[in-house]
Amino acid sequence: MSLQQPYDPDNIFAKIIRGEMPCVKLMETDNVLAFMDVFPQSKGHCLVIHKKSKAVNILDVEPEALNELIGATQTLARAVEKALEPDGIRVMQFSGARAGQTIFHLHFHVLPVYEGVVVAAHASGKPANAEELEPIADKIRKALG
Amino acid sequence: MSLQQPYDPDNIFAKIIRGEMPCVKLMETDNVLAFMDVFPQSKGHCLVIHKKSKAVNILDVEPEALNELIGATQTLARAVEKALEPDGIRVMQFSGARAGQTIFHLHFHVLPVYEGVVVAAHASGKPANAEELEPIADKIRKALG
Repeated sequence: MSLQQPYDPDNIFAKIIRGEMPCVKLMETDNVLAFMDVFPQSKGHCLVIHKKSKAVNILDVEPEALNELIGATQTLARAVEKALEPDGIRVMQFSGARAGQTIFHLHFHVLPVYEGVVVAAHASGKPANAEELEPIADKIRKALG
Repeated sequence: MSLQQPYDPDNIFAKIIRGEMPCVKLMETDNVLAFMDVFPQSKGHCLVIHKKSKAVNILDVEPEALNELIGATQTLARAVEKALEPDGIRVMQFSGARAGQTIFHLHFHVLPVYEGVVVAAHASGKPANAEELEPIADKIRKALG
């Protein structure tokens, strides 16, 4: 099975981009959007997506969109460090369900890790609600300036 | 503790760039170098580094070097998919020891994953030797063209 597959325009992130589903937004430009992961693996787990590229994963994304995504990921990682002072940050991108990809619209994870706190499995348990995520998001937004 | 720290010019990747330590090389340009991880977490686990940037992690890297790195990471991920036909690929970058960073020269991991095969812990056990890695590297090099 190839890891490249057709883009489904009804995936959850496409709905978020179109405003058909809510998200706890962190930053937005003409081309990129960052928001809180609704299944956080740690406090401050957030995601960056491209609003125009229809890439499924890193294998099929256009170079310019990839550059915009990684630049926004860096900006977000710096803000997460400033806002939450984690003991480490993992940047991750998964291609294929077996790698851990659950939404087939290319996204980069920014995952802060904390000494003594086990990173949760992805998409385990029930999703966080906006009220839980908002105070964390607010700190990150302030750090974004 | 901040995740930003001074760059140590004697880290292992700096020695590889200067030719003072060997590596199983996959591709090289004026600015980037890709090679096999000597502690592979799966078959085909490889790394991309910048040859000129003295960035410790994603937090302190210059935008141009970051773009070059992620572009090379994409190229390498595509080659790994073609060469090894994994069931998924994880692209990862760790900032800080607690996040899993062991060498403090910015690097991106390309980690293929395979159905039914558990991904090994990082830097566990003894390192692979070049003879084990060469046949896998050769397949990736051929896919790089």
